[in-house]
Amino acid sequence: MTTTSTRQTTDRPVLDAETLWQKDKDHFIHPFTDYSTFHEQGCDLITDSDGIYVQDAKGNRFIDGIAGLWCVNVGHGRAEIGQAMADQATRMAYFSTFNNLSNAPAAELAAKLAELAPAHLNHVFYSCGGSAANDATIRLVHYYFNRLGKPNKKRIISRNNAYHGTTYMAATLTGIASNNWEFDTLDHLVTHLSEANCYRRPEGMSEAEYCDHLVTEFEEVVERIGADNIAAFIAEPIMGAGGVLVAPEGYHARMQAACRANDILFIADEVVTGFGRLGHFFASEQVFDTQPDIINCAKGLSSGYAPLGATLISDELFEVLGTPQGKGGVLSTGFTYSGHPVSCAAALKNIEIIEREDICKNVREVGPYLEERLKTLSYHATVGDVRGSHFMMCLENVADKATKELLPVEARVGDRVAFEAQQRGLIIRPVGHLNIVSPPLIWTRETVDRVVDILDEAFGAATETLREDGFL
Amino acid sequence: MTTTSTRQTTDRPVLDAETLWQKDKDHFIHPFTDYSTFHEQGCDLITDSDGIYVQDAKGNRFIDGIAGLWCVNVGHGRAEIGQAMADQATRMAYFSTFNNLSNAPAAELAAKLAELAPAHLNHVFYSCGGSAANDATIRLVHYYFNRLGKPNKKRIISRNNAYHGTTYMAATLTGIASNNWEFDTLDHLVTHLSEANCYRRPEGMSEAEYCDHLVTEFEEVVERIGADNIAAFIAEPIMGAGGVLVAPEGYHARMQAACRANDILFIADEVVTGFGRLGHFFASEQVFDTQPDIINCAKGLSSGYAPLGATLISDELFEVLGTPQGKGGVLSTGFTYSGHPVSCAAALKNIEIIEREDICKNVREVGPYLEERLKTLSYHATVGDVRGSHFMMCLENVADKATKELLPVEARVGDRVAFEAQQRGLIIRPVGHLNIVSPPLIWTRETVDRVVDILDEAFGAATETLREDGFL
Repeated sequence: MTTTSTRQTTDRPVLDAETLWQKDKDHFIHPFTDYSTFHEQGCDLITDSDGIYVQDAKGNRFIDGIAGLWCVNVGHGRAEIGQAMADQATRMAYFSTFNNLSNAPAAELAAKLAELAPAHLNHVFYSCGGSAANDATIRLVHYYFNRLGKPNKKRIISRNNAYHGTTYMAATLTGIASNNWEFDTLDHLVTHLSEANCYRRPEGMSEAEYCDHLVTEFEEVVERIGADNIAAFIAEPIMGAGGVLVAPEGYHARMQAACRANDILFIADEVVTGFGRLGHFFASEQVFDTQPDIINCAKGLSSGYAPLGATLISDELFEVLGTPQGKGGVLSTGFTYSGHPVSCAAALKNIEIIEREDICKNVREVGPYLEERLKTLSYHATVGDVRGSHFMMCLENVADKATKELLPVEARVGDRVAFEAQQRGLIIRPVGHLNIVSPPLIWTRETVDRVVDILDEAFGAATETLREDGFL
Repeated sequence: MTTTSTRQTTDRPVLDAETLWQKDKDHFIHPFTDYSTFHEQGCDLITDSDGIYVQDAKGNRFIDGIAGLWCVNVGHGRAEIGQAMADQATRMAYFSTFNNLSNAPAAELAAKLAELAPAHLNHVFYSCGGSAANDATIRLVHYYFNRLGKPNKKRIISRNNAYHGTTYMAATLTGIASNNWEFDTLDHLVTHLSEANCYRRPEGMSEAEYCDHLVTEFEEVVERIGADNIAAFIAEPIMGAGGVLVAPEGYHARMQAACRANDILFIADEVVTGFGRLGHFFASEQVFDTQPDIINCAKGLSSGYAPLGATLISDELFEVLGTPQGKGGVLSTGFTYSGHPVSCAAALKNIEIIEREDICKNVREVGPYLEERLKTLSYHATVGDVRGSHFMMCLENVADKATKELLPVEARVGDRVAFEAQQRGLIIRPVGHLNIVSPPLIWTRETVDRVVDILDEAFGAATETLREDGFL
């Protein structure tokens, strides 16, 4: 059975798929792409989209199970966002926000973000995406402690399997070992703790004990390095690309308390969890009961319609960052495209849609159903764990459910399942032995039913090929 | 006399200027802004634009003398770029380019850039701006040498007063001392040479001798650090924010030769010089006779209509970067918004306009006239040097033309001149004691005449206030 289908694109210019495929293969250096297959196969071109669907250049239509890449929260094809961008681009596409100049959408969006974020986060530093937001954060945090006369407070505590992006600094914060294979990192500035991985926690440890264990590990690192040398702790509320890992109950609040006790800043990377994915604009306070000193966001902020990132900074920090340097000195950081008018206009329209359609409520209603229905797939031979929350879900494939032993890398189990799903009209994301489901936030219960039916078949088919190839 | 005027914006929503001003002041952390004035004065909002003009929220209209910030090369208000963005945003706003997926505008643009760039630069790594492009470049260069089995080749040679952006790594490449005041940098990775500053070169040295002097300095640094420890040399063809410094004749070609002789990569940061500012799509080969291993671009690439950066990489480098890592490994770097469809669509339309209207030819014709006319301002008391090339110009203010001594910082001479120009309907950029003129590339000879008339008055008025305040 296949649910793929073609559809007419009558009012859209017809693309020369073959020429584009060749141009792409010859000239586009793709991120996170396996060049052992790329040089021959090249890429599938995603050319059209509509609501929960995307379509490739060959006319195959798919349910988008990854929201582009944790991005397209309001769904595809929102003409009103495109129109808002065109209006702004034509009215005033770009002017610098340096030197006491600004623009209307950047001002409006900064105020809106301050309204949506936890009460004390009232100041917005703009960038063009999550990597740059996290990178700028570390630069500002170091500046903050320098200005406070605490120049030794520099070390950032991150976690194994964290994903914080790929600028040089953001890649250093990232704790996924394979991400930095043959790349260099700035190890003198970052220390990684254990990730909070309930599925693979030490044998016989309760969730509560595991939480104690993780907080103790942090406190021991603080003790060893010295709080005077540590600037901040950074964490995703739910770890994203590292495997959609949900920390034990109470973990974040306790980590925040341990930070506060040691004059260590608490930074939440909400690039994925922000803008509705867990049922609220921000997850930190409303889901995890934390009040970070800094929250970073991107992706859902503009639903991916335009590149945009934002670092939300507390009143306390801004008091220092905004202290004049005297003698005509300026706060000498920021980007040409900080507060880009068109990107900010896209974000404002995106937020308007999220509010108007109460998309957060949809996530709070349909999210638990998605969790429940995905858990029914646990009967498949490889599905060792189904985890996540609301519209941020993951299935972990294993060779043996009792021992949680993994299949060999060359089995490419995540790729197999994703391939079988795609053959049946659904795109999900393979990350090693994992399959991630992180859809647009407009899925209904009916969509969930269709998706789980497809996944049921896909896991069945993948299991079969794994058996045929001798991996099971 | 004032040339400011209001104009009707009948078909555009009326903005509540006062509320926006307050929101901006309360919530937007502006880059490169002086907080000693910001907390009281806030920002002027640039709200409208058209061709060579921008307009603020109070209805004052200005000739844009800085192209937003070296960005808006094709001029403001190009509805067709807005429309191209809206069409793409509605058709397919965003999908990941990871994992063997791509999109049509990213593929098309990569091929177009390969066509426009020097012949051997055929591979494009996308980002969202100049900072990220330079940051990604260093990460890729380090990866390149690691994969070649030369892990010690890590040091980057940059120059004092270079501007390469503000990610943690890009800020380290940057050599403007005031930019990193109270910020930290990654000094173990970057060494700065002297900038090529013909105006302030050692007394009695000819331009040819000065060129020898600079190349010798580089060769001595290579000797001292060891070519085995040096990865690359990075330079703007004409230094931008560091003062529009034009190197002595032959400098870049000789630096490239010195790099080649030592297995050091030669990187051109064409974020400012690219896309027509010097009369060609790229200046490296056509103006400076160099064939860089890597060219970075941003700004004029999309004329600022959408955030976009691109790193153009040689066939030789790509052969290594694109070598499969085996065992399902991927080239694990890149951004969510690498090859963003809407940004790439904006860039394609922008390039189409540059070609259709032969804007490079306009720069080649009007540029020399702009240089010539600006030089007539040399008679003003403070104008020590008028320099630059084509649409990338700078006036350096001094206290004494013979000694080239500067006015004291508190005279804020650059700000004074910019203020007087703005009062007369022209925005130029103050950078310390400098005033930069880097307009949209559609200025005509008539525009140049108007601009130089305004500047003539502005320098006169600024000189008067400097005298009144006892600085002259």
